[in-house]
Amino acid sequence: MDDDVLRRGKPACHVEFDVATALLVGDSLQSLAFQLLTEHRLSDDPAVQIEMVKILAVACGSRGMAGGQAIDLASVGQALSVPELEYMHIHKTGALIRASVALGARCSNTLAPGQLARLDHYAKCVGLAYQVVDDVLDQESSTATLGKTVGKDAANNKPTYVSALGLARARALAEELREEALAALTELRGGAKRLAELADFIVLRKF
Amino acid sequence: MDDDVLRRGKPACHVEFDVATALLVGDSLQSLAFQLLTEHRLSDDPAVQIEMVKILAVACGSRGMAGGQAIDLASVGQALSVPELEYMHIHKTGALIRASVALGARCSNTLAPGQLARLDHYAKCVGLAYQVVDDVLDQESSTATLGKTVGKDAANNKPTYVSALGLARARALAEELREEALAALTELRGGAKRLAELADFIVLRKF
Repeated sequence: MDDDVLRRGKPACHVEFDVATALLVGDSLQSLAFQLLTEHRLSDDPAVQIEMVKILAVACGSRGMAGGQAIDLASVGQALSVPELEYMHIHKTGALIRASVALGARCSNTLAPGQLARLDHYAKCVGLAYQVVDDVLDQESSTATLGKTVGKDAANNKPTYVSALGLARARALAEELREEALAALTELRGGAKRLAELADFIVLRKF
Repeated sequence: MDDDVLRRGKPACHVEFDVATALLVGDSLQSLAFQLLTEHRLSDDPAVQIEMVKILAVACGSRGMAGGQAIDLASVGQALSVPELEYMHIHKTGALIRASVALGARCSNTLAPGQLARLDHYAKCVGLAYQVVDDVLDQESSTATLGKTVGKDAANNKPTYVSALGLARARALAEELREEALAALTELRGGAKRLAELADFIVLRKF
């Protein structure tokens, strides 16, 4: 799977236990997410709650996270263009980030379709920014600071935003995506402050 | 994972492609199952449809299939008793078989709680019978007849109904479970004929 050994300074699950156990924990947690969507009343309208299950299912599946991971596997040793990298990451990590924002938004009965669309654009930008920053940190940070093993992408011959753009332009892209994410929030009030903080945290983080 | 190489006479997905791809296909199909539960009107009552998602989520998760698989991993090289084997298989393969029957039953608005309980008992018996027959066939069949690699459990040092009971008593147990499954159906009409045929197919199969 992945040669990472540290996450937040601790051994990854597949290192602390074994790969089979880590896979089963992932399977169990994913099922638990679906279960939680059924155990609480998340909307006044049961049809919206069923739609929420669909949002999560699509985001996890072949047209979301699992499909993105398959593209990732197929791209080892390939020199991907920036649009190709974007396509991969929008699926691999972006789909679940977008689904998270979409699910939160569906819990509200007061959001208009235009507001849902802006939240989705925010989530798309944040999801991509997360990956660009990940690639930058993998290149420039130390394992001690990052809390996970650095340099793994280069060692695994994986295409990254840094390999495609260079370090300076990758940093600038992350900043552009943060600004685009924040711009998508300007017409929303209240909770959007926390979403803006989240965008800042993701792009400005050092670990 | 599993050292099987053949399924229905063809190479297993992880052999034809690779383990990572097979895992992603499994993840994708599981997400698709949840998606399908949201894309069709399966009950006049949306609350029942939400309950169906929960039935599948619980059956897949740590208290169902994934948990049973974890018990399976932990039981390699152990001499399990018949109750311990039953506990493992009720989770590992039985949970999804029971969920399948429960989901079909929930599509009907005409079943009383007692009928749902009998269907669940049918599914529990069929799920266990499936595993007992699997162990018997693994011991007594040939790879050509079975269409999958035989003798793998003994080779992998895994506890089976045959290792716990011997071949003759394992065969008798499968037959008892089939009779118990059929008995649970006697008060149901119509579709129960197909469920009876399924129990017969599972226990009487030679492959």
